[in-house]
Amino acid sequence: MTTSAPGIDEVRARTFPFPRRHFLSALDLNIVEANRLLDLADTFVALNRQTTKKLDLLKGRTLVNLFFENSTRTQSSFELAGKRLGADTMNMSVKNSSVAKGETLIDTAVTLNAMRPDLLVIRHASSGAAELLSQKVGCSVINAGDGQHEHPTQALLDALAMRRVFGDLAGLTVAICGDVLHSRVARSNVNLLSVLGAEVRLVGPPTLLPAGADRWGASVHHDMEKGIAGADVVMMLRLQLERMQGALVPSTREYFRFWGLDREKLKAASDRVRVMHPGPMNRGVEIDSDVADDPAVSLIQDQIEMGVAARMAVLATLAARLDND
Amino acid sequence: MTTSAPGIDEVRARTFPFPRRHFLSALDLNIVEANRLLDLADTFVALNRQTTKKLDLLKGRTLVNLFFENSTRTQSSFELAGKRLGADTMNMSVKNSSVAKGETLIDTAVTLNAMRPDLLVIRHASSGAAELLSQKVGCSVINAGDGQHEHPTQALLDALAMRRVFGDLAGLTVAICGDVLHSRVARSNVNLLSVLGAEVRLVGPPTLLPAGADRWGASVHHDMEKGIAGADVVMMLRLQLERMQGALVPSTREYFRFWGLDREKLKAASDRVRVMHPGPMNRGVEIDSDVADDPAVSLIQDQIEMGVAARMAVLATLAARLDND
Amino acid sequence: MTTSAPGIDEVRARTFPFPRRHFLSALDLNIVEANRLLDLADTFVALNRQTTKKLDLLKGRTLVNLFFENSTRTQSSFELAGKRLGADTMNMSVKNSSVAKGETLIDTAVTLNAMRPDLLVIRHASSGAAELLSQKVGCSVINAGDGQHEHPTQALLDALAMRRVFGDLAGLTVAICGDVLHSRVARSNVNLLSVLGAEVRLVGPPTLLPAGADRWGASVHHDMEKGIAGADVVMMLRLQLERMQGALVPSTREYFRFWGLDREKLKAASDRVRVMHPGPMNRGVEIDSDVADDPAVSLIQDQIEMGVAARMAVLATLAARLDND
Repeated sequence: MTTSAPGIDEVRARTFPFPRRHFLSALDLNIVEANRLLDLADTFVALNRQTTKKLDLLKGRTLVNLFFENSTRTQSSFELAGKRLGADTMNMSVKNSSVAKGETLIDTAVTLNAMRPDLLVIRHASSGAAELLSQKVGCSVINAGDGQHEHPTQALLDALAMRRVFGDLAGLTVAICGDVLHSRVARSNVNLLSVLGAEVRLVGPPTLLPAGADRWGASVHHDMEKGIAGADVVMMLRLQLERMQGALVPSTREYFRFWGLDREKLKAASDRVRVMHPGPMNRGVEIDSDVADDPAVSLIQDQIEMGVAARMAVLATLAARLDND
Repeated sequence: MTTSAPGIDEVRARTFPFPRRHFLSALDLNIVEANRLLDLADTFVALNRQTTKKLDLLKGRTLVNLFFENSTRTQSSFELAGKRLGADTMNMSVKNSSVAKGETLIDTAVTLNAMRPDLLVIRHASSGAAELLSQKVGCSVINAGDGQHEHPTQALLDALAMRRVFGDLAGLTVAICGDVLHSRVARSNVNLLSVLGAEVRLVGPPTLLPAGADRWGASVHHDMEKGIAGADVVMMLRLQLERMQGALVPSTREYFRFWGLDREKLKAASDRVRVMHPGPMNRGVEIDSDVADDPAVSLIQDQIEMGVAARMAVLATLAARLDND
Repeated sequence: MTTSAPGIDEVRARTFPFPRRHFLSALDLNIVEANRLLDLADTFVALNRQTTKKLDLLKGRTLVNLFFENSTRTQSSFELAGKRLGADTMNMSVKNSSVAKGETLIDTAVTLNAMRPDLLVIRHASSGAAELLSQKVGCSVINAGDGQHEHPTQALLDALAMRRVFGDLAGLTVAICGDVLHSRVARSNVNLLSVLGAEVRLVGPPTLLPAGADRWGASVHHDMEKGIAGADVVMMLRLQLERMQGALVPSTREYFRFWGLDREKLKAASDRVRVMHPGPMNRGVEIDSDVADDPAVSLIQDQIEMGVAARMAVLATLAARLDND
């Protein structure tokens, strides 16, 4: 099962300086940069499938995961990405932090910064938190989700999963469905997919679409069947029940009936349709297990695998950028 | 104090492919395999006693500790075992995981699996959880305790501790005493010790012995003195107060009087008797500190030391097995 | 931005055996040893400012962080120090430990010790906990804060930060202000600064100065202005509201008025004064942001940076001591 890994020199040769010092928004990338990053990520997918999934490209670098919100998969994904690149990797979760003692976000950031990390991954409940941090620290900041704003590495991994199935994304039709209102994933995907030339649709009940969604550069649909008609990709969003203030949805059962993706609704999409979900899924709420677990249509596991590889590409290029500064 | 460490080539030469892809039960090993694994573990005991306790045998491999129940010593033991073998090691505890967001055990496992770990250590409150996982993932699964079912690496480290004192375990008399009902440690020990030719006794009040214990291949005793008479090893089990539903025990004081091991009760055992306990101990409940802390009879600290070494042997052989698949 | 790093051979040559097996109190060091340790720490400051901030001096060594109290910065600082020196580093926090199952501090320590760590960093709410541990284990113990007793690596990093500004500390006037009663930082600083020849003042309301503070070898002041008059360093202490039993302070607002450091009060100090704080700060309680964030006077970020370097020096020398034993 072991195939030959891309050598460190080869990967180093393909690694280029990230276009900015920080990765805060999917808008930080133009089409050329995005595709070059996806090319590099493909290399890391190959590496991670080998027995020895390690490349000491970031040896001596320090990566800090600073998570003010819990997230198994995103934090693990960055942790593994850092470790597989040989970086010293440290996790800080909010419960262990001085925030409980009354320290501010900025104090925490400035404290961390004084420890001379190279790469700081942050997730925070407030939109704009990552950008605020980036102005206070000397290291590179990666936005791993800030409020309802952006989650750019998710968009990158989603694009990677799509590109590996469909090739060039130009002209691809992607329907992003469900709770767009609370979704930074949706926003980052719209941004990056637009750059990559895909046609994006936002599909959901009016209560779960943000005001002004029609100005995001995507079409807006309030009917599921019409929204996914002919779509190449149907990306279901997690119904963020824990973030809902007030009753935006009558019941999860009602929600599934109108907006949950099942085999029947999926018939409206393209013959070659693939289904995506950023996870964790509410099975039987926004998606039926029958669809989610079907390897012929579901890219959900691929997304997770692509997550580690895409983050390795981001970390490697940001570190290369730091070398040049 | 520094002695020469076994070289990496020497250890690699002694490392063999684990007989199965997963290590779920002590029954996964026959006598030849078990002894070969114990031989390899002895090598790691020597390594861990040296200044440089590191051997990059698993460099580039990814080990994930997935613990749905807290456990200081087992998790730490696997973490150190992985790190000392050079693996990238990641801990996931249930509180940080998406399980809180409603994700199922299987979703968590499938998510992790997509990140391409090589070795997945799982502890879970449900019997059979480890086996269930092993059917869903591509990596090797190690059962670090599933409900009241099995905890096979504990049995392996216990056998290692015994073998280093007594040599061959064939014909050795081992009395396992106390709360057998709630103990996966007891079950795994009965399984492995039987394979290794020891005579095993289960000793405890009827309320703390499982129905059908007489069919485990061990003799059953409801009298402490008779149960440990002439025994070479007395293995005390932790009284699992936190798992007891209903009043199986009148009071811990009463329990100690009848079932707690003290110097007086120990007189019934063999002259060369050794005392064991998987920890953490309830001092003054199932065991008296006077016995537990006596280096002449207690193997309790040795068990912990053997734990790291035994787990290194398991990780190394499972990885060798993956190489061959 | 990359400058040449001190080579591993150079650092190894500068590394000397720590004078004791453990680092429990600032009193463990005499003036020669303290300055030699600070010299070594300066080397690590330079290392940490480089791109490749890694030196495999402790490869194969195991460092365990055993924290019974939460602390972002101290635990992170030791973790990074260990990782940057190439040690295998493991964090254990009390919530994940068997302490919750009723295991004693000593059992936890003895358990850990059996896993053969080389360096054990402990923080505990009880004064004397670190020393107690050091008598039970074979590894080196580093006191990272025990009750209201000592926090010697904090004193070391504070001395490093001062020495880099003022050179020799002999004759320097340091005013330690505020909640001295609950502060192990104050006690360790008085001890080390006295060894290094500085003149130390303790400044605070009588309710927040411990009985017998006049016998610490520092002068005692109950008036802020007089206390910091002409001081070269004003070290503000965190008001430990969470540890206060009974009402020692009327209100935080009142406290700030009389004891909080602001620009106005600071005028009484020396022209070259520097302000320090061990963090995390209660802004507007014991210190005004206007002072804390002024790079011309504040050493607060430097302290954090020095923390990683000072701990690297401690870990490296303790390991060198283990080599010799």
